[in-house]
Amino acid sequence: MHYDLSLEEARVYRPDLPVPGDLAEFWAGTLARIGRTPPVLERVESGLVTVETYDVTLAGFDDHPVRAWLHLPAEPLRPGVLPGVVQYQGYNGGRGLPHEHVFWASAGYAHLVVDTRGQGSGWTTGATGDPGGSGPAQPGFLTRGIEAPDTYYYRRVYADAVAALEVLRGHERVDPSRVAVAGGSQGGGISTSVAALAPSSVAAVLPDVPFLCDFRRAASVAQTEPYLELVRYLAAHRDRVEQAFATLSYFDVAVLGRLASAPSLWSVALMDLTCPPSTVFAAYNSYGGPKEIEVYAYNDHEGGDAFQRTRQLAWLAASL
Amino acid sequence: MHYDLSLEEARVYRPDLPVPGDLAEFWAGTLARIGRTPPVLERVESGLVTVETYDVTLAGFDDHPVRAWLHLPAEPLRPGVLPGVVQYQGYNGGRGLPHEHVFWASAGYAHLVVDTRGQGSGWTTGATGDPGGSGPAQPGFLTRGIEAPDTYYYRRVYADAVAALEVLRGHERVDPSRVAVAGGSQGGGISTSVAALAPSSVAAVLPDVPFLCDFRRAASVAQTEPYLELVRYLAAHRDRVEQAFATLSYFDVAVLGRLASAPSLWSVALMDLTCPPSTVFAAYNSYGGPKEIEVYAYNDHEGGDAFQRTRQLAWLAASL
Amino acid sequence: MHYDLSLEEARVYRPDLPVPGDLAEFWAGTLARIGRTPPVLERVESGLVTVETYDVTLAGFDDHPVRAWLHLPAEPLRPGVLPGVVQYQGYNGGRGLPHEHVFWASAGYAHLVVDTRGQGSGWTTGATGDPGGSGPAQPGFLTRGIEAPDTYYYRRVYADAVAALEVLRGHERVDPSRVAVAGGSQGGGISTSVAALAPSSVAAVLPDVPFLCDFRRAASVAQTEPYLELVRYLAAHRDRVEQAFATLSYFDVAVLGRLASAPSLWSVALMDLTCPPSTVFAAYNSYGGPKEIEVYAYNDHEGGDAFQRTRQLAWLAASL
Amino acid sequence: MHYDLSLEEARVYRPDLPVPGDLAEFWAGTLARIGRTPPVLERVESGLVTVETYDVTLAGFDDHPVRAWLHLPAEPLRPGVLPGVVQYQGYNGGRGLPHEHVFWASAGYAHLVVDTRGQGSGWTTGATGDPGGSGPAQPGFLTRGIEAPDTYYYRRVYADAVAALEVLRGHERVDPSRVAVAGGSQGGGISTSVAALAPSSVAAVLPDVPFLCDFRRAASVAQTEPYLELVRYLAAHRDRVEQAFATLSYFDVAVLGRLASAPSLWSVALMDLTCPPSTVFAAYNSYGGPKEIEVYAYNDHEGGDAFQRTRQLAWLAASL
Amino acid sequence: MHYDLSLEEARVYRPDLPVPGDLAEFWAGTLARIGRTPPVLERVESGLVTVETYDVTLAGFDDHPVRAWLHLPAEPLRPGVLPGVVQYQGYNGGRGLPHEHVFWASAGYAHLVVDTRGQGSGWTTGATGDPGGSGPAQPGFLTRGIEAPDTYYYRRVYADAVAALEVLRGHERVDPSRVAVAGGSQGGGISTSVAALAPSSVAAVLPDVPFLCDFRRAASVAQTEPYLELVRYLAAHRDRVEQAFATLSYFDVAVLGRLASAPSLWSVALMDLTCPPSTVFAAYNSYGGPKEIEVYAYNDHEGGDAFQRTRQLAWLAASL
Amino acid sequence: MHYDLSLEEARVYRPDLPVPGDLAEFWAGTLARIGRTPPVLERVESGLVTVETYDVTLAGFDDHPVRAWLHLPAEPLRPGVLPGVVQYQGYNGGRGLPHEHVFWASAGYAHLVVDTRGQGSGWTTGATGDPGGSGPAQPGFLTRGIEAPDTYYYRRVYADAVAALEVLRGHERVDPSRVAVAGGSQGGGISTSVAALAPSSVAAVLPDVPFLCDFRRAASVAQTEPYLELVRYLAAHRDRVEQAFATLSYFDVAVLGRLASAPSLWSVALMDLTCPPSTVFAAYNSYGGPKEIEVYAYNDHEGGDAFQRTRQLAWLAASL
Repeated sequence: MHYDLSLEEARVYRPDLPVPGDLAEFWAGTLARIGRTPPVLERVESGLVTVETYDVTLAGFDDHPVRAWLHLPAEPLRPGVLPGVVQYQGYNGGRGLPHEHVFWASAGYAHLVVDTRGQGSGWTTGATGDPGGSGPAQPGFLTRGIEAPDTYYYRRVYADAVAALEVLRGHERVDPSRVAVAGGSQGGGISTSVAALAPSSVAAVLPDVPFLCDFRRAASVAQTEPYLELVRYLAAHRDRVEQAFATLSYFDVAVLGRLASAPSLWSVALMDLTCPPSTVFAAYNSYGGPKEIEVYAYNDHEGGDAFQRTRQLAWLAASL
Repeated sequence: MHYDLSLEEARVYRPDLPVPGDLAEFWAGTLARIGRTPPVLERVESGLVTVETYDVTLAGFDDHPVRAWLHLPAEPLRPGVLPGVVQYQGYNGGRGLPHEHVFWASAGYAHLVVDTRGQGSGWTTGATGDPGGSGPAQPGFLTRGIEAPDTYYYRRVYADAVAALEVLRGHERVDPSRVAVAGGSQGGGISTSVAALAPSSVAAVLPDVPFLCDFRRAASVAQTEPYLELVRYLAAHRDRVEQAFATLSYFDVAVLGRLASAPSLWSVALMDLTCPPSTVFAAYNSYGGPKEIEVYAYNDHEGGDAFQRTRQLAWLAASL
Repeated sequence: MHYDLSLEEARVYRPDLPVPGDLAEFWAGTLARIGRTPPVLERVESGLVTVETYDVTLAGFDDHPVRAWLHLPAEPLRPGVLPGVVQYQGYNGGRGLPHEHVFWASAGYAHLVVDTRGQGSGWTTGATGDPGGSGPAQPGFLTRGIEAPDTYYYRRVYADAVAALEVLRGHERVDPSRVAVAGGSQGGGISTSVAALAPSSVAAVLPDVPFLCDFRRAASVAQTEPYLELVRYLAAHRDRVEQAFATLSYFDVAVLGRLASAPSLWSVALMDLTCPPSTVFAAYNSYGGPKEIEVYAYNDHEGGDAFQRTRQLAWLAASL
Repeated sequence: MHYDLSLEEARVYRPDLPVPGDLAEFWAGTLARIGRTPPVLERVESGLVTVETYDVTLAGFDDHPVRAWLHLPAEPLRPGVLPGVVQYQGYNGGRGLPHEHVFWASAGYAHLVVDTRGQGSGWTTGATGDPGGSGPAQPGFLTRGIEAPDTYYYRRVYADAVAALEVLRGHERVDPSRVAVAGGSQGGGISTSVAALAPSSVAAVLPDVPFLCDFRRAASVAQTEPYLELVRYLAAHRDRVEQAFATLSYFDVAVLGRLASAPSLWSVALMDLTCPPSTVFAAYNSYGGPKEIEVYAYNDHEGGDAFQRTRQLAWLAASL
Repeated sequence: MHYDLSLEEARVYRPDLPVPGDLAEFWAGTLARIGRTPPVLERVESGLVTVETYDVTLAGFDDHPVRAWLHLPAEPLRPGVLPGVVQYQGYNGGRGLPHEHVFWASAGYAHLVVDTRGQGSGWTTGATGDPGGSGPAQPGFLTRGIEAPDTYYYRRVYADAVAALEVLRGHERVDPSRVAVAGGSQGGGISTSVAALAPSSVAAVLPDVPFLCDFRRAASVAQTEPYLELVRYLAAHRDRVEQAFATLSYFDVAVLGRLASAPSLWSVALMDLTCPPSTVFAAYNSYGGPKEIEVYAYNDHEGGDAFQRTRQLAWLAASL
Repeated sequence: MHYDLSLEEARVYRPDLPVPGDLAEFWAGTLARIGRTPPVLERVESGLVTVETYDVTLAGFDDHPVRAWLHLPAEPLRPGVLPGVVQYQGYNGGRGLPHEHVFWASAGYAHLVVDTRGQGSGWTTGATGDPGGSGPAQPGFLTRGIEAPDTYYYRRVYADAVAALEVLRGHERVDPSRVAVAGGSQGGGISTSVAALAPSSVAAVLPDVPFLCDFRRAASVAQTEPYLELVRYLAAHRDRVEQAFATLSYFDVAVLGRLASAPSLWSVALMDLTCPPSTVFAAYNSYGGPKEIEVYAYNDHEGGDAFQRTRQLAWLAASL
């Protein structure tokens, strides 16, 4: 069922979201805490013959180890330096097994599949812990450390994501000026935030049905997990509603995205119960760079899926 | 929750399933109706660089056109003739888009991804219709034509599946003695049936959490679609219960599988609400060829997923 | 819960639905394919003493056999020729057992209870198959053959329905100028379409909570089966959304009904999750003949049920 | 899903249910309180021509008025005196509208359709109130007055049911020696209880999927309303569990039925979530008179429905 | 999810609800039927040392016995006469066990916890029956006797509630000019009605997320029990919709509350699926006395819970 | 529904659970890491007059601050030193607001209500964070750090719980030889573990429907959260099943409880979907000290609730 704004309303939906006065300082300070330990790459046998895979351990926020797979098209299918794609994961997923996510590598890109710290026990598995603790929180990740921007879980996640991007850009077989960031749902939110926090490092952005957008509306209209973690937190901590939203304003893709400048190809699903289409448009409409959006009128959170992949293959080939 | 037989009980569960007296004749007559129109292969651009893809139209039951993708590892990654894998689809899925299912090709196999006629409007899309009609049936495919073996939907599906196998075996780049059949759920049921109906053509079988096994128990214990289509049919047609099971006995993987002889690697999930583990063991325990089974104790119908893929890569490399 | 347009909004809801340019030709060609095999009537013993029942096999689309029951009030309760009612079935139902649907016969009408081909495995059973196949489709009937008007399932159903009407009109004990068509849900959609396709044969129409109306809105607001079959089809075949709606425009009761001219008594339920009230009003508001509508404010898809039956008894007695 | 005892186990399931020492006295005292006000019959126009209908007000427990419809086959279809059927209603139903339940009249019987006091706001409507109050009770009827046999709701209901039986037997057009009692679910429980409480007045019993049987097991295995009313009551009144079961032992069809002697035709559904098959067999196995049972293996609470109606027509014609 | 009016809309939502012409007479006549039997108080041992508890039996409507607990702060914590709080219960609850509801006594008030007749088999238990019967009704209390104001269940409940208030006011240790009425959900509705029916006896009102407000809108938007009892009643009795609403207009808190004059502190939850926020605001906006309302933006029917208790402690200390 | 072992089976259910060889060392090492910072107590105004409340900050595992409320009966209701009760919280709850949990103080005990670190955003709120991080984990607390006993979340929780016990025992108004531990669900598991880890400090144990018992069976039969967190973790990390259970064996109440010696009063609910009754009996049957258990036959996870509180009041008064 279409339960959110109509497409016409959503296309012009531009909520007046507060921008924290110290947003730039906060993120400058955060990115300064990315670790400097050089990444370790180890060749692994995935069982595939068309892709070459490396197990990557890179330094994230506070030098915490973050795990990823680097997939390269097998020799001799990768002449010279390659364009790259960093892929971030949906909520509760991880980089998975070595043979699991090789789409962009199969399409000729250097492909870095990055874990989300602490996650990776859901639809795919991860190998990265989160040493950061939290205050009282709902089960889940969305309210972990929400009592302040400094302690909020996604501070560490976004910093890790920027770190991963730079690792791929620094790889000898990669052209650092031609690296895209991509992901669906949480991965879409992270990739857009990375485009905002490291604008000069990102050549293109591919956010699908992004999460982490326009939290106040999301809390009002979302019908399924994980936004409901936030709703339950606010239902319990009736005295911390504004404090929670104040924290979230530092991480809202509909706030941060204004700082981005890379060309972008988005997607949205009009029956998406997880990431309501209005919240996706809030982010899309405020995004700072060139942008296009594919609208899937009858899809839930799966969005365009393989159809969007086809669209992205062509768009990215033309954009990078 | 574990709701079915315990693992210990399931390992020795061997229901006494009736074998139709004319089973061999029925299937001989059915396979004789596979069309003889030569397959048509057309190169398509999938957007991937590591795999080469062909749009295949092959002749199925009664010469009805059946669509498939043939994926080959890109040159020069495929020296000489290749071992092959025919992959059948889960219920309501289809061959999808050209870039969607390339796992076995990425692992070095000639890989044929075959549609299931009439299906392909679910988790992946298909391009193959089913000209066969039906008597009164539940919405869905499981009871279409169930009034007699001759009209039953899966008669046409199994015949198509054998036809597809022979098309891959007949391809110039394929070693016909080294072709495996594989699939999950409905695809697992079909691949085992193919191994039974064309035993000399199949070199290995990879059935994951197979559907279409031990229908009477399935109707008794299954908790979700699509076995519930059968339950609803039996609930409506209270006077045709035995007739329906008589038809199904020609298609039951736990009956047919005795005729198979190829080595096989199975998987089962003990919390599988869709394909109850007891029904999978009914088929496994009666399977005629060499066999191993991976047990996933805490999984629902997703079963072993990528973990089973890892296991299959090693097993198949050693078996073919 | 009231989840759709308010009653005030619904009463004036007139969507601008596209009318196919060749609509008349399409239906003329379709009706021309109704078979000419004369109907066969066989007396059956229903166990009832007040109604006399015949098992009818009539020629439907492409001369396919369609089954029905003809119920007549028992002698001597039926003096002279009788007015008639053709009753079409709700989705997934059938003509049932001989004693099951005898309401209109008990009220003094010649009563023909017609199967819907391929259906009849749900709340009542049917005896009529559908030899027509389909392209890739959702489990169910609503998307069977949706790739083109010529192959769409309801083409055959509507043609069968017209055929059945003429069979009742041709019966020796029936006054052909006094025959009504009736049905709930799918049966309501079919009866209105019959009134549009055979306007000179229909003396009155009784559509209750009709299905098959204003498909685009239905896909947008319906919350339960079977409209969700369409939504899932559109979700899978993201590239065929407009093609599907183009096919449906030939079968939309809100489009066809403009061609009808018989007096009609409708009903609608404002909490109907299956056939949203707005879609019913879309059809009602565009209906071409005289019309009245009963509004059931707190009912789901059961609508007025026995209360509407009381209303219909009086209205039909006055109208025929 | 089959969730209860297997059919083999159920066929021999005979729980050791306690019989209250004063059971006979209790019921003698109760039936003595049936009112003696003569019934009032008023001809109503139902809109049907094959059945003649009277609005009946009869004296129930404590002379409370109880409403019913008396349907007779229309003249001249009813020569001489007729056999009769008293039909009791399922939980939350009522006698409905005059044209609604005329099955047995259409089959040639004098047919009394009786309200259940206080109910009749569900699938059909009733016109009979319940002046009796209750102690603290769950919403619903099953725990109303459960604190003692004297105050329990079903005491009044069973007495009303016996009163209605005698009203039909006393009608001038009815043969008092050929009256059956019938009903599904709650109606099945009531009809069996009537056969036990007025054994000399009942010529045959037709209980379908009866409710009110073997309460302790029902509370343990039932998965849906209305037995869950009892479970919730016991969950709240943790200190009254035995008191509640002591009350119920006076009303348990599996206890009372031993006193019955009329021939009976039962039905049970093996996937019945409302009236678990084991509880039905508990009553059937202990029933005092001749008995047969139809088993519907794949049905939920709808049981045999029209198929059982066919069976009953033949059986009753042969039995009365 | 926010599914009802926005907060801005709700704050000004003032439906035009009909006021029965004989409202005052009806209630005068009703209150005149409160029994005059003096209350009986019996000291009970609750196991608590800080609170002293009495089992109270008081005379309600038609002198029916109504049970309550009177809790007093233990000596010597209660110098002189005390302010009082009468607490009414939520739907299906009761006064519970002696140690269960002692909040207001612990805060220094004479605290009367009153049963709701016939209820008390849910989240807490009750000890008070309802000798009043009903016409055909939905399972539950909301439609019991809804056929007329005189027979409606809540007539007896509201009268009992007024009786209980006067019992507390008449206690020797209570200052009759300083007694508040309080409750959540149904208890909120009752306490506001008491403030309207006995305005000179009530010093303050504490309605939380009140039930029994603006029934027509409630029937239109409520998503869960118990308002759905009303919807199901209206769905069955399609011919009694206006009659039912006419009865309810005598009991609607949004109608009665205009007659109240005591200061009040309300609460509402914007995600309340049980008592929709718009219905609460309908009552709040029409309330006749001084008023404040706490809005809990992300809570379902639990509302402010302990947070509201904190707010009430301060407000009541300042108000009494 | 009764879905687990029958009561008879459960009473003798004694699974053969592995005891880690270094269990004693592990816990000795863990308890050695409890902080030595003296507790800080600050008087707060709760609004209640019968209870005096202090905000407590005590040193937990690794000296992390843990928050609690200390409630004492108000003067002069607490002569001399008092017996004490430490109350641990159910999953996702916290110590709540100062007036929220005062039951044991109202009964005359020194009552310490302790937070569970990181939790407290559910049915009650908490104020204690968890600085400990985790590896990849399911959303929730049950799999946080499950990769090894050293990192497992409940290691810190159990240590905090022992620390809190000692704080209460060390209070000047408390008799250290008369302190009980109590709690429901997670609180029941924690209190029993505390009795095992600090046997000489615990005078009585009151575990209600305890969580954290017999994890392997719990994962097999539990039907709701939070045990399903574990099931989902095992479903994702198919390769870590035994590693996870190995970690859990250090924390299993059915393993640890053998080390306890204090008298105990347990409760279990036979329809408990959250903490299956068999798992509770596994813990109860292996408990090392004197024991009694109340069985609530028809309750879900709410168990005996206020009824059990009555039972506990009497038992504890007699036991301490």
